Amino acid sequence: MITIYQFLNGTIHVIDLKELHRSLRGESGVIWVDMENPTEAEEETLLLSIFDFHSLTIEDCRKGSDPEGHLPKVEDFGDHLFVIFNPVEGVMATEDEEAMFRMEIRTSQLSAYLTSRALVTHHYTPLRSITNAMQLLTKNALTLGKGPDFLFHFIIDDIVDNYTPILDKLDDAIDSMEDEVFQNPSSKSMMRILHLKRNIITIRRVAVYQREMLSRLSRGEFELINRDEMIYYRNVYDHLVRMTDMADSYRDIVTSLLDAYLSVTSNQLNQVMKVLTIISTIFLPLSVITGFFGMNFIHLPLANWEYGVLITGVFMVVVAWGMLWLFKRNKWI
Amino acid sequence: MITIYQFLNGTIHVIDLKELHRSLRGESGVIWVDMENPTEAEEETLLLSIFDFHSLTIEDCRKGSDPEGHLPKVEDFGDHLFVIFNPVEGVMATEDEEAMFRMEIRTSQLSAYLTSRALVTHHYTPLRSITNAMQLLTKNALTLGKGPDFLFHFIIDDIVDNYTPILDKLDDAIDSMEDEVFQNPSSKSMMRILHLKRNIITIRRVAVYQREMLSRLSRGEFELINRDEMIYYRNVYDHLVRMTDMADSYRDIVTSLLDAYLSVTSNQLNQVMKVLTIISTIFLPLSVITGFFGMNFIHLPLANWEYGVLITGVFMVVVAWGMLWLFKRNKWI
Amino acid sequence: MITIYQFLNGTIHVIDLKELHRSLRGESGVIWVDMENPTEAEEETLLLSIFDFHSLTIEDCRKGSDPEGHLPKVEDFGDHLFVIFNPVEGVMATEDEEAMFRMEIRTSQLSAYLTSRALVTHHYTPLRSITNAMQLLTKNALTLGKGPDFLFHFIIDDIVDNYTPILDKLDDAIDSMEDEVFQNPSSKSMMRILHLKRNIITIRRVAVYQREMLSRLSRGEFELINRDEMIYYRNVYDHLVRMTDMADSYRDIVTSLLDAYLSVTSNQLNQVMKVLTIISTIFLPLSVITGFFGMNFIHLPLANWEYGVLITGVFMVVVAWGMLWLFKRNKWI
Amino acid sequence: MITIYQFLNGTIHVIDLKELHRSLRGESGVIWVDMENPTEAEEETLLLSIFDFHSLTIEDCRKGSDPEGHLPKVEDFGDHLFVIFNPVEGVMATEDEEAMFRMEIRTSQLSAYLTSRALVTHHYTPLRSITNAMQLLTKNALTLGKGPDFLFHFIIDDIVDNYTPILDKLDDAIDSMEDEVFQNPSSKSMMRILHLKRNIITIRRVAVYQREMLSRLSRGEFELINRDEMIYYRNVYDHLVRMTDMADSYRDIVTSLLDAYLSVTSNQLNQVMKVLTIISTIFLPLSVITGFFGMNFIHLPLANWEYGVLITGVFMVVVAWGMLWLFKRNKWI
Amino acid sequence: MITIYQFLNGTIHVIDLKELHRSLRGESGVIWVDMENPTEAEEETLLLSIFDFHSLTIEDCRKGSDPEGHLPKVEDFGDHLFVIFNPVEGVMATEDEEAMFRMEIRTSQLSAYLTSRALVTHHYTPLRSITNAMQLLTKNALTLGKGPDFLFHFIIDDIVDNYTPILDKLDDAIDSMEDEVFQNPSSKSMMRILHLKRNIITIRRVAVYQREMLSRLSRGEFELINRDEMIYYRNVYDHLVRMTDMADSYRDIVTSLLDAYLSVTSNQLNQVMKVLTIISTIFLPLSVITGFFGMNFIHLPLANWEYGVLITGVFMVVVAWGMLWLFKRNKWI
Repeated sequence: MITIYQFLNGTIHVIDLKELHRSLRGESGVIWVDMENPTEAEEETLLLSIFDFHSLTIEDCRKGSDPEGHLPKVEDFGDHLFVIFNPVEGVMATEDEEAMFRMEIRTSQLSAYLTSRALVTHHYTPLRSITNAMQLLTKNALTLGKGPDFLFHFIIDDIVDNYTPILDKLDDAIDSMEDEVFQNPSSKSMMRILHLKRNIITIRRVAVYQREMLSRLSRGEFELINRDEMIYYRNVYDHLVRMTDMADSYRDIVTSLLDAYLSVTSNQLNQVMKVLTIISTIFLPLSVITGFFGMNFIHLPLANWEYGVLITGVFMVVVAWGMLWLFKRNKWI
Repeated sequence: MITIYQFLNGTIHVIDLKELHRSLRGESGVIWVDMENPTEAEEETLLLSIFDFHSLTIEDCRKGSDPEGHLPKVEDFGDHLFVIFNPVEGVMATEDEEAMFRMEIRTSQLSAYLTSRALVTHHYTPLRSITNAMQLLTKNALTLGKGPDFLFHFIIDDIVDNYTPILDKLDDAIDSMEDEVFQNPSSKSMMRILHLKRNIITIRRVAVYQREMLSRLSRGEFELINRDEMIYYRNVYDHLVRMTDMADSYRDIVTSLLDAYLSVTSNQLNQVMKVLTIISTIFLPLSVITGFFGMNFIHLPLANWEYGVLITGVFMVVVAWGMLWLFKRNKWI
Repeated sequence: MITIYQFLNGTIHVIDLKELHRSLRGESGVIWVDMENPTEAEEETLLLSIFDFHSLTIEDCRKGSDPEGHLPKVEDFGDHLFVIFNPVEGVMATEDEEAMFRMEIRTSQLSAYLTSRALVTHHYTPLRSITNAMQLLTKNALTLGKGPDFLFHFIIDDIVDNYTPILDKLDDAIDSMEDEVFQNPSSKSMMRILHLKRNIITIRRVAVYQREMLSRLSRGEFELINRDEMIYYRNVYDHLVRMTDMADSYRDIVTSLLDAYLSVTSNQLNQVMKVLTIISTIFLPLSVITGFFGMNFIHLPLANWEYGVLITGVFMVVVAWGMLWLFKRNKWI
Repeated sequence: MITIYQFLNGTIHVIDLKELHRSLRGESGVIWVDMENPTEAEEETLLLSIFDFHSLTIEDCRKGSDPEGHLPKVEDFGDHLFVIFNPVEGVMATEDEEAMFRMEIRTSQLSAYLTSRALVTHHYTPLRSITNAMQLLTKNALTLGKGPDFLFHFIIDDIVDNYTPILDKLDDAIDSMEDEVFQNPSSKSMMRILHLKRNIITIRRVAVYQREMLSRLSRGEFELINRDEMIYYRNVYDHLVRMTDMADSYRDIVTSLLDAYLSVTSNQLNQVMKVLTIISTIFLPLSVITGFFGMNFIHLPLANWEYGVLITGVFMVVVAWGMLWLFKRNKWI
Repeated sequence: MITIYQFLNGTIHVIDLKELHRSLRGESGVIWVDMENPTEAEEETLLLSIFDFHSLTIEDCRKGSDPEGHLPKVEDFGDHLFVIFNPVEGVMATEDEEAMFRMEIRTSQLSAYLTSRALVTHHYTPLRSITNAMQLLTKNALTLGKGPDFLFHFIIDDIVDNYTPILDKLDDAIDSMEDEVFQNPSSKSMMRILHLKRNIITIRRVAVYQREMLSRLSRGEFELINRDEMIYYRNVYDHLVRMTDMADSYRDIVTSLLDAYLSVTSNQLNQVMKVLTIISTIFLPLSVITGFFGMNFIHLPLANWEYGVLITGVFMVVVAWGMLWLFKRNKWI
């Protein structure tokens, strides 16, 4: 589905391919072409015939149909800039009670061409940021009027804003994981922590690549981005710096949680071993005492005395208490 | 609450907005505007209408109402410098006996604009460093007279000085943690060490960001900072270098403490296991001996002999002592 | 075996050494010489006499007969570029059921000389990428017509594409390893994980070296690579960036798997210890009870009472159940 | 205590403050002023009034009264260079038998000003390197005659030489620690290793900072250091490179020792567990056998037979030996 | 022992000090002076009087008598280059069965001066690479005729080639260590792995320093090295890159081996614990059963029945088998 917006004389029109041709031959007006899940024919007509973009970039655009898409990059072809961006979506498997720790982070791909008068965006799945940009255009025509680089900044700013809810969910998951580890560690905790860690690493990696790209876009390296608009790109860059910083903290915490989990389970082992030791240490001697008086000797001491059993019983209780007292003193209990 | 100081002809006056207008149109005098928890209207009037700062910076200022605020940064807009700084506060939960290890390190945000004639500071919570600067002005008008960059240096120097007590508390906590780990490790030690570590990482991160910023401020990168005053900024930079250095040491020590803790608890397990082994190794054979003479055979050896019990008892003691001697020789006790 | 292709006036001919001589003296036409497992004499004739390449490069070419070959590199001799590339092959030991985890990654060596009019490739084992390039030439003569640097780009692109199936196999191995670790860890898991890790490190290292080289080839550092074709080299570079990125992820995951494996086996130990503790804790006291009533005292309580055994039996069951209840309450089971 | 040396016309005189004034107004002669534990008045007179050094440097000098002093740095004020250096001292607590592992590494601070004609050194505690320099002056006046930068090189070279005995002691401690870990590990080993590690990290950090500074001094960055003398500074730099290199090795070894210690104690646990298992596995079955024949059944087999006990005893010995043989075969002993 | 070679008019002569003097005053001919274990007088005559090298370099030469020698470095004094190189030797303690893992890697020092017409080499122990170079000279006078930088390249290339057998031995040791860890781990394995690791770190460090130096020599940084010969230095650099790369792999593998060893011993503990648990779990209940029927009650059930013992015996076997079956089902055996 191809949608084409033209800003001319202060208003915005949705135009078709023929008008696009005419508009590009004309000398004024700003154009935004959005291609959602286009056919190969459409790609070739628009990107090669009408806009004359470099043929290799189409191959990169088509990587967008892969599950993960192409890594972010920006390439300068003189009269046009080719940019790949990775929107991110956190998908929870809701039928699973482990949902929080099993959130899958899916990256998709938005390819964009930026010329002095036009912005062309290319993606396979519908993107919320593109829809938002379209709604904004109906409200405020000037968003496009300020040039394609301003509109493009709006779209990537919106994409980056969509990272925030995912980071928030990871934050919640870390908090509940921390409670679990210290209060109720189970054999599943390890797997959950590893899933959390992998999610954090994924989102961090995406953010880092994006950050590097934004850094280049906001440094004035590309002439197609207006010097006045660079500050807006700098703003998106700042968001991404903050996000990678948060992802770094999360990773530190999760690594500590792993250590904590191992320590807690090792403490449990210690605890269990102590119980075993105490039980053994109390009852093995008692067992020997009863065994002693169970021997079939003729002259077994105490055996024929009326209070023998009583004395022996008291002795056994004394031994047991003595052992317990020893443990208390050595702080083993 | 907006407070405006004007230095003119060697004295300092507190002026209102109208006078500020007039003063800025005039050609001499240095101005300091402090905005504490301002309304949105005040922000727009002052920052946009009166001073004509870049509109994007206001968004950054408002991040100051978030719990953690914006990361430190410095941006040069030609006629003004926009700086964000992170004052730090260590809050102890005093109702909790774990207070020392649960200190929460809270960062807030101080946004500042620096022009050739004015300093504008913007923050939401009251800041001790701002109050200190105001008190200094009443004592020594020249602090402002030397230019807004000199006053600004004073404020950030004071902010950085406030990091010291927090580092000291962390130092104390590390010392008492070290004693705890080696002399009285408990199952809570792990959690405490992790809290300590996280606090150290937090303060380190804040200091590192600040240090990078100060490095740029003290390098002569910005024309709005006087070449003669750069040495003062270099001084603040040195403080921050020392602080990150200390935080690095602390982190090393705490990581070692974690290792030590794990080793100590593993040693305790070893200890407990040895006790169990000794007890079992002494009493299991004795149990078999008593069992042997408890068998209901007709021709049980020794059974009908008068000193059978005595002999058997002595034999049991010998076996027990033999085992203990074996352990001693093998250094298991 | 030496094969020589000449592109002249739009068509491609396979020529012999004599014609090669003539062609090089002529002023037009593009040449591709492929040397597969050449003799030393052939090497010297072609590389030194006919082409006059630097004599040290022959030594590097001959490293290709070593199992691992020379590390990738690119050297500029002004009128020719000398490039070493490492094709990679994943060899599975199919007779071994561990095949998946024991895949051996073999690197070989492709040496290439690039001049303004000719490409000379040198390798010992037959390479699929070379065969593919030859097939392409029969279909599309222009592949060579566009210049030796275009053909060379095609060959290394094909080599890099061959990394993908190996990465896919590693991905599969990681997935099945993950299942094994969490569901059915055995004493062989450790060794398998280590093998996987080493494979990942190997492929990553090869890709990193290649990436660095491609980065230089695509940056316009060498004049022998046409500015228009640099974008194709950039494309290969992008593939390698993606591959090292994937290898990095794999390494992270495998390292986590190691931790997980250690944690899982430690959990198993915990489990076994708990069973031991429960059994001991239930039966040691019972043993003492039976021992008590097995003592040969005259006045053993209950001994002469009709229901003594019943009472004692019930008491033993109560003790056992009480112990179990205690474990349940403390969540030890 | 202030000592002032003046080199004039080939000889050295100790002069007082008045003569210093005159000498500085004069046009020839080289001066060395050493301030040991000066009063604040002396500092201000000398550093500010007489030499006119930058006032902020005094604050840095005074950090020298702190236990650790200021981190090394070098600052160029055009007509003078301000340098901070950290002499190091290894203090052993001799009353403690743990002395070797408890050596405390104390850093102090030497501040120095270098002008074209004078060297001013400032320190609180007496420094051996300063004393050595003074003794050298009495022997060889030319040490000062070659310029203040030559004398300064001599002092810092001497300071760096003082690191060597500390590194040697650490080397000895590592060696004896290695023996301890593999032959006689105790519960104190962990603490000792951590102390060693911390000492190594401390000396490494000091050396690294110094090295970075020397690197700048020897690179020709500062005009006050003569190009001919740079090679001497380069020499000191080489020493520091070697020292950090050694400290790095030491740290690697100590980290390995930690791993080794943990492995050794874990092996001990393994050993103890094996003994426990062997004892239990031998005596628990024997206990059941004796228990079997201790049952009060009428028709107990063998019970009324003369050789019953003998047979049973032999059977018990066979069972015990069988168990032991099983362990031997499985290599558990 | 000082040996002096002079190349003049196409032939090589061994000359004495007097002739050296004359030759240096002359305007043609290339000189190689080798000093093996020279006296201090010889050093001063040759290096200071005849060649006029910088005096500080002699101090560095003399570091060669230390066990480890000076770290590699290269210094440019304009008319001469001073280079320190570290030949390496792997010494095996053959009387020790641990030889393979206890190989000691000894570094020595080769100092060299390179001028436009002469090469001066200085070393204390006899070096194979020097002998090789001398033998080459007798065969091919042009080796010296091509200039001192060509000869020097030959010597360091030979030194670097001597690293290969050591790396091969380490490779063998790693392979046999890997078998040991997975098939026959003993308490000595840990120590062996640590020794291996330390050897690898040593050789890697030496190679890295050398590599950095060669990188500078082959980059054209020094005018005394002919631009045409730089490619030969580049070749040596490539060897060292490959060696550090191999050493890196070895280090990775050895670190993995450490993990594997710890995992294997931990698995052994698991195994031992399982045996203990199984034995206890089978025999403790049996013990209680026999104890039950050993009680001295009058109305002991089954006691007076003829088949009581048989029933009880069968019951005990059933209990034992039930336990074993339970273990099998839970995969504990």
